[in-house]
Amino acid sequence: MQAEIITIGDEILIGQIVDTNSAWMSKELNAIGISVNRITSISDTKDAIVSSIEEAISRVDLVLMTGGLGPTNDDITKKTLSDYFACELVQDEGLYAKIEERLARYKIGMNAFNREQALVPEGARIIPNDFGTAPCMWFSRDNKHVISMPGVPFEMKNIMQSRLLPILSEEFDCPYVLHQTVMVQGLGESVLAEILQDWEAKLPSVVKLAYLPSPGVVRLRMSLLGDDESELKAIVENQLKGLKAILGERIFAFDDEKIEQVIANLLLDKKKTVSTAESCTGGNMAHMLTSMAGSSAYFKGSVVAYSNEVKASVLGVNTNSLEEFGAVSQQVVEQMATGACKAIGTDYAIATSGIAGPDGGTEEKPVGTVWIAIATADKVISEKFVFSKERGRNIRMASLAGFNMLRKMILNVEKMMG
Amino acid sequence: MQAEIITIGDEILIGQIVDTNSAWMSKELNAIGISVNRITSISDTKDAIVSSIEEAISRVDLVLMTGGLGPTNDDITKKTLSDYFACELVQDEGLYAKIEERLARYKIGMNAFNREQALVPEGARIIPNDFGTAPCMWFSRDNKHVISMPGVPFEMKNIMQSRLLPILSEEFDCPYVLHQTVMVQGLGESVLAEILQDWEAKLPSVVKLAYLPSPGVVRLRMSLLGDDESELKAIVENQLKGLKAILGERIFAFDDEKIEQVIANLLLDKKKTVSTAESCTGGNMAHMLTSMAGSSAYFKGSVVAYSNEVKASVLGVNTNSLEEFGAVSQQVVEQMATGACKAIGTDYAIATSGIAGPDGGTEEKPVGTVWIAIATADKVISEKFVFSKERGRNIRMASLAGFNMLRKMILNVEKMMG
Repeated sequence: MQAEIITIGDEILIGQIVDTNSAWMSKELNAIGISVNRITSISDTKDAIVSSIEEAISRVDLVLMTGGLGPTNDDITKKTLSDYFACELVQDEGLYAKIEERLARYKIGMNAFNREQALVPEGARIIPNDFGTAPCMWFSRDNKHVISMPGVPFEMKNIMQSRLLPILSEEFDCPYVLHQTVMVQGLGESVLAEILQDWEAKLPSVVKLAYLPSPGVVRLRMSLLGDDESELKAIVENQLKGLKAILGERIFAFDDEKIEQVIANLLLDKKKTVSTAESCTGGNMAHMLTSMAGSSAYFKGSVVAYSNEVKASVLGVNTNSLEEFGAVSQQVVEQMATGACKAIGTDYAIATSGIAGPDGGTEEKPVGTVWIAIATADKVISEKFVFSKERGRNIRMASLAGFNMLRKMILNVEKMMG
Repeated sequence: MQAEIITIGDEILIGQIVDTNSAWMSKELNAIGISVNRITSISDTKDAIVSSIEEAISRVDLVLMTGGLGPTNDDITKKTLSDYFACELVQDEGLYAKIEERLARYKIGMNAFNREQALVPEGARIIPNDFGTAPCMWFSRDNKHVISMPGVPFEMKNIMQSRLLPILSEEFDCPYVLHQTVMVQGLGESVLAEILQDWEAKLPSVVKLAYLPSPGVVRLRMSLLGDDESELKAIVENQLKGLKAILGERIFAFDDEKIEQVIANLLLDKKKTVSTAESCTGGNMAHMLTSMAGSSAYFKGSVVAYSNEVKASVLGVNTNSLEEFGAVSQQVVEQMATGACKAIGTDYAIATSGIAGPDGGTEEKPVGTVWIAIATADKVISEKFVFSKERGRNIRMASLAGFNMLRKMILNVEKMMG
């Protein structure tokens, strides 16, 4: 079963709001086996509405629309659809009473706009809206279905979840859909594609593979569509085995999970704590960790040591090391990590020191050079990276690389302890 | 001038990502006088790409596309467009060298995928991508223009801002558009709208006003479209005077400028330095400050004191105060600020202590309660805020409120000194 989504509203076309309805609807529709093959955002005009519907029903049997159902003059979806499907607008007594009651709560009387809201297209299927005055309207002709919903996200979501999705799932013949995401850290998209070339070539045709890159992380997504759930699951399991064998610990999660969440779960599970000593990441690692609710259970604090004086005075980095090797060096970053472990009193500490850019690079240490260290009470490891020329990207990639080093260290410590 | 936007990618259609590119592009295009009359999101298939282009160029002369330009097999936009416009793919030596150089930095050799990336359609206009390997391609036929850009947001934004928008603005006949943004801190959208009610009612009809709220900040945007630049400018100047009289120091900038940039300019101008001592903001203030290039000139470091032990040991907060008043108190936050000034050695320090949520609230100190202090060597001020119930929002609003307190303090110190 294929569908299209049409969202109506000038505010989308001037970029004043981001259309988040479509993504939400797509995800929900995919989950019940209805795939979305096109999303169109159009303006509040009769021409745009009619032409987009005609195009959509020429391609698919099901069209879901949101928007343009408000009480003001710029909202013309109901009138346009009723004309298009040759339905007369008639008063819905139940809806009229409901609107009257809602208005009474705000001590407002019925006016022409509200009376208009109580009209519904005769012959269309009307699905109630528990949180607003504009109901969902389902028009059908020649096995083509056009369903119009209000654009207010929580009204639309409520209509879909509590009423529409169950009906669609029951009345249409939908296949089973399975998505499996694999989160990979530390490999660029093209390098990853090369590594996976042979594996990818042998993928069963039912598996659709997508690479979804963001700085420092590539999300690999396998999507399968079929009738036999257990068969699809078996195929995915098998392919996951192959991926694990190739990528090993480059994979940090099998859900669409952030690495800071993976770190959080590991630390909570092992009852360990972490701190950070940040130079080039400038507090971003602390920010990422503390963005998650409940982080005080495993995160104690950070020292953002942007100047050399703070590296020395708060973290206890040797001033000779700073002079001899420079702030961006293995010696200094290791002392920063060890210093943070002690000063903040945690089991693990992550330290970063690098040249985020755009200035400050040298021949020997170009912009993007970052040293990262992980310390425990009795051990410290470190690694040098060269990321990009772009400041924001370097900060983000260094943060992710630091978390990934910590993840591997925690897992290895676990392994060594049997 | 009218345009359409087409975004390509199955990840949009399965709802894995929200298409934020379109809204950003629409806003930028509107700003140079190009209106967007349709946005279409389609899948990575040849049929979908070709049919959506054909439909779009039947309605408008300019089509901007993003996505499907990666090096992997699922990305087919370049091949499809080149076939459609009958352009042969030829190697671009400059691009080849650039890709080789990029790869060399990561110590990676050229592979088949990367070599493919160096191919460009002969006859199309190629606009460089400074942050990635997929350039922007501009195809033209019979005065219809189709421009394809990578879907990675920061690559697309850079291409548009630094190269494409200036070209579009110059080569197409666009009306003069004037936008004036006013950045307002510390007032919710509805309260601001109420305060500005009378001023808004008297606005000349040529001025289109938009409220663009984000947590802690409302961007007010006046947009004027016309032929006479100086006339539009005079109207805006006049309205700005009115706004300043009403909002005073609630306005922190007149460009679309971030508050951390405003702080940076002030500190650089006065040759002063700042540090932060963060509890509930968890490093976000340090992160925001260090996101800006050149921040080491005025930012020395931070202590993220998430646990009480760190507040005491690193910032020197009195343990009796912690016990008597709790971590979220005027006493503690003032000691944190004073402690950071000393420990990090800066002219100013901002400290935050609050309950970000979702847990940890009490009757007396509900989730969203935040104490913020600003200290200098001989002075400390503090203020209590109650923000929202949402963690991310509280972190962001507390950070902005702290910066705004610092901004006002620097301006007042300046005023007192004559």
